[in-house]
Amino acid sequence: MSTRKMKVTLVGAGPGDPDLITMKGIKALQKARVVLYDALTHPDLLEYCPEECVKVHVGKRFGQHSCSQDVINFMIVEYAYQYGEIVRLKGGDPFVFGRGYEEIEFAARHGIESEVIPGISSSYAVPAMVGIPLTTRGVSESFWVVTGTTKSLKLSSDLALAAQSSATVVVLMGVHKLPEIVEIYSGLGLLNEPIAIIQNGTLPNQKIVTGKISNIVPLAQVGRVSSPAIIVIGRAASLPDSAINCAKQVSKKTDLMS
Amino acid sequence: MSTRKMKVTLVGAGPGDPDLITMKGIKALQKARVVLYDALTHPDLLEYCPEECVKVHVGKRFGQHSCSQDVINFMIVEYAYQYGEIVRLKGGDPFVFGRGYEEIEFAARHGIESEVIPGISSSYAVPAMVGIPLTTRGVSESFWVVTGTTKSLKLSSDLALAAQSSATVVVLMGVHKLPEIVEIYSGLGLLNEPIAIIQNGTLPNQKIVTGKISNIVPLAQVGRVSSPAIIVIGRAASLPDSAINCAKQVSKKTDLMS
Repeated sequence: MSTRKMKVTLVGAGPGDPDLITMKGIKALQKARVVLYDALTHPDLLEYCPEECVKVHVGKRFGQHSCSQDVINFMIVEYAYQYGEIVRLKGGDPFVFGRGYEEIEFAARHGIESEVIPGISSSYAVPAMVGIPLTTRGVSESFWVVTGTTKSLKLSSDLALAAQSSATVVVLMGVHKLPEIVEIYSGLGLLNEPIAIIQNGTLPNQKIVTGKISNIVPLAQVGRVSSPAIIVIGRAASLPDSAINCAKQVSKKTDLMS
Repeated sequence: MSTRKMKVTLVGAGPGDPDLITMKGIKALQKARVVLYDALTHPDLLEYCPEECVKVHVGKRFGQHSCSQDVINFMIVEYAYQYGEIVRLKGGDPFVFGRGYEEIEFAARHGIESEVIPGISSSYAVPAMVGIPLTTRGVSESFWVVTGTTKSLKLSSDLALAAQSSATVVVLMGVHKLPEIVEIYSGLGLLNEPIAIIQNGTLPNQKIVTGKISNIVPLAQVGRVSSPAIIVIGRAASLPDSAINCAKQVSKKTDLMS
């Protein structure tokens, strides 16, 4: 066993729609002997694996831990020792709040090499697919992605900086902290800042609620949005009404070529 | 022609490696009658298109405009009027500094519907593939992506704010502004902030230079890094030396299972 190559390949599954995995990710699954997969990865993706592939569910779902991160780290090492090369399929992108770095670091300490195959991150893809661009010339020149699930919710200190910038702010896994987020913006006097909440982005049961800081809490209650959802704050969040729907509203086409 | 459906599908080609396109993007190419593609999209991707597909190069490469954005917008409308449904293949992600929103907005004003198929954005994928996670628990809990090339061709003023935050900062299309970036960080007393520059990320000719704010300008000169490249600033930028290389340095494996 000491001479056998041991390697874990982290594969990002993307934000939900199984067709949003990359070709590189598919190729890794197609030759996998073992796949350790998350709860939020789409079941169809496992169909790319060979029939004899060992499929191990190690998922965590918000609020209900199937396996703790420590257990997942140990399982990666155990399976790599047993099978040599393994695939770790993770929702979204492995390195964008995916704790993928912790996994490869732990693996590395046990002599296991690693490779990272990025996945589409919901941070920009979920807004994009409902017509919200995180950046647009003249509207926002940057975007800032934070998580709502840190112990300290570090939103507060950095948010004052983001509020002065042209950045579009994206909060992942933060829908349960919505009142807190609204309080921070309200405290900065940004009551009219547009905000959008998208639940189950890219999936058939996708739901979107848009409003302003001043009215988003009741709107979210009426719309019954819950996790998993992402929050977009800034001028960009008011854009989905314009361009995407504009095409449907155009009654007479301008004949550009005549 | 007035009853025919007109639609432009924006497809993100990803950061360079042609296998980093999504399955959804491939499916769009496979049934495309017309593809308008950028200079930075990999030529192999066009092989997914049917043989009879009309392939139109509309690329812009940094510093040498093949077509201006205005011309591209007009071409989208022209081809949609002529062919009905068209595909617009763009490097990276269409909505992350990709000016995709301008394209669908212009198209919408001419009665053309749109769909966005996200692509892997180089902003996080290029760092990930060299072992730099933009977020890691206890190291960086957010990331902030800024462009080095705004409408006014200036470095975004958001950078000065981002530099004061706890976020990992990513500057896209900013390598020609490196001295200016260094000046902003130096002015804030952040001389020891780790910084990494990655050129041609995910491609065989990828090149990486790492250092600190205080020494990155001479290091980049010696390393001859140029566009297209992305810059990562923050503690995360010092990580590639640790975990990724750690596995190779482990001489004796700890037998976890015995």
